[in-house]
Amino acid sequence: MKILFDTDPGVDDAMALLMLARDPRARLVGITTVYGNASIDTTTSNALALCERFKIDVPVARGAAKALVRPVAAYPEMVHGRNGMGDVALAPAAARREESHRAERFIARMARRHSGDLVLVAVGPLTNIALALEHDPDIVEHVRAVVVMGGAFGVNGHAGNVSPVAEANVFNDPHAADQVFSARWPVTIVGLDVTHEVLLDTAYLDAVGRDGGAEGAFIRDITRGYEEFYNRQTGGGIYSHDASAVACALDASPFKLRRGPVRAVTGGIAMGQTIQAMPDSPVPAIDWAGRPQQSVCVDVDASRLRADFRTCFVGK
Amino acid sequence: MKILFDTDPGVDDAMALLMLARDPRARLVGITTVYGNASIDTTTSNALALCERFKIDVPVARGAAKALVRPVAAYPEMVHGRNGMGDVALAPAAARREESHRAERFIARMARRHSGDLVLVAVGPLTNIALALEHDPDIVEHVRAVVVMGGAFGVNGHAGNVSPVAEANVFNDPHAADQVFSARWPVTIVGLDVTHEVLLDTAYLDAVGRDGGAEGAFIRDITRGYEEFYNRQTGGGIYSHDASAVACALDASPFKLRRGPVRAVTGGIAMGQTIQAMPDSPVPAIDWAGRPQQSVCVDVDASRLRADFRTCFVGK
Repeated sequence: MKILFDTDPGVDDAMALLMLARDPRARLVGITTVYGNASIDTTTSNALALCERFKIDVPVARGAAKALVRPVAAYPEMVHGRNGMGDVALAPAAARREESHRAERFIARMARRHSGDLVLVAVGPLTNIALALEHDPDIVEHVRAVVVMGGAFGVNGHAGNVSPVAEANVFNDPHAADQVFSARWPVTIVGLDVTHEVLLDTAYLDAVGRDGGAEGAFIRDITRGYEEFYNRQTGGGIYSHDASAVACALDASPFKLRRGPVRAVTGGIAMGQTIQAMPDSPVPAIDWAGRPQQSVCVDVDASRLRADFRTCFVGK
Repeated sequence: MKILFDTDPGVDDAMALLMLARDPRARLVGITTVYGNASIDTTTSNALALCERFKIDVPVARGAAKALVRPVAAYPEMVHGRNGMGDVALAPAAARREESHRAERFIARMARRHSGDLVLVAVGPLTNIALALEHDPDIVEHVRAVVVMGGAFGVNGHAGNVSPVAEANVFNDPHAADQVFSARWPVTIVGLDVTHEVLLDTAYLDAVGRDGGAEGAFIRDITRGYEEFYNRQTGGGIYSHDASAVACALDASPFKLRRGPVRAVTGGIAMGQTIQAMPDSPVPAIDWAGRPQQSVCVDVDASRLRADFRTCFVGK
């Protein structure tokens, strides 16, 4: 499966990238960067450095520095550290340079080059994907599928992580998310409803650090501050949101999907909330009418994901 | 318990009013009317006619004809009929006239007269209550409690009834709802999360009609069209939303309550959604900060409510 990875590294982005480097089912063909977990300068430099570290040899194209409409929210340093990598020093890439093309042009070019084969896996704010749709609307015909880490649908008792109803990626650019969900290509949305079901507890992370060689130790190091942030919610352990989206792109069978049009709320106290209309419901859904059916993950086999992650993180 | 009933009759409003007339725990001291299930002319004339029919001798004060800000939505004739009573002819009140004071002045006057004792039970759009707060903000000190039928919090798998996330009363005047929930008086919110748990099925309604004398037969008659509307969701039977709110006002013990500040979304695709922030959550809730803790019903003993309703509907 050919994958273009749109990312804002980011601790869990690094974990997802290691999966993409190591999972035999994945064939990564390019990376685009976006602001989100840190500034665009930081996420782009992290993406290049991670490629060098993980021996990933694909183009890296710089993307958006800010959302389509709303002002940039503060970067979540309390989650990902000041450098986006849990304040673990990451050697800058020596041999890698970013592409000359911007992300939206790169996405459109790759969609046409790998027409019918390319899966976009987007794990940051959806600004680059929305800009690519604006730059070349026909990419909806060429892209095979879009898998998004984002959103919160109130399933399984889970709510938002940056407001009572909003998840951070959609909150950061709700206008872009609404455009991406409403475009006529198949979108699968991996939201907090499922990522919060896949707890990687302290013992799990310690084992990755102990058994996983240099990269396992690196994953353990960068997740320490991230774990400290999450401990208040989890009582010990983290959610690897972006790795769950990669898992879903590679094989959706551990997930239960729900079909129906999806929109993002673009303003007001519910800004960033994602809402799916149920196609067989008698309840009116005027603002969803005529929009394409997309897939929302509403349940997950967490044990299977934990095992798949471990194989990639430990590398054997 | 002294109750002022703010209502837009309405089929389930009539059922709630019969409870207030017959339940020995209730002492109804007044009625205010509001647009909602039908126009203000219709709901006011229905309230007067129902008082005569049920031998309720309290003042009826006419209230708002439209929401504070948004334009009036169409009246739900497919639910409550063209006359608000399931198109069952209701003899106009012969002996009763509405109060000369408007609802908001009447509410404020009653709040002060029964200071510390009065419970407002509001089962329509919250326009009158918001106008009363504007007219006399000090009523928050005099009213003992406010019990609202409205809202949908996504609990128990239930969603909205006029959009994927909105319940009709809050949707009809979200600005008023947001003001009422944010005022510093104790509000208990009886939303679809619990009213949709209390199904009155066809056999139940038929038994009320058979065993309940003239008023039981009347309830059975007015619920026929209402049941036809609900059958698509329920497979046979109705929800008596407003009767559930009266039950909660009289005795909250069959309900499980959740505390936290509540807001209503006033625009956009989520307009009319109600959102509660969890006080012990690590998730930011900036737009809820500093607002009072209110109670949201998140579970209900449906059997107990069905039995209490039956006692009132059958009258023995």
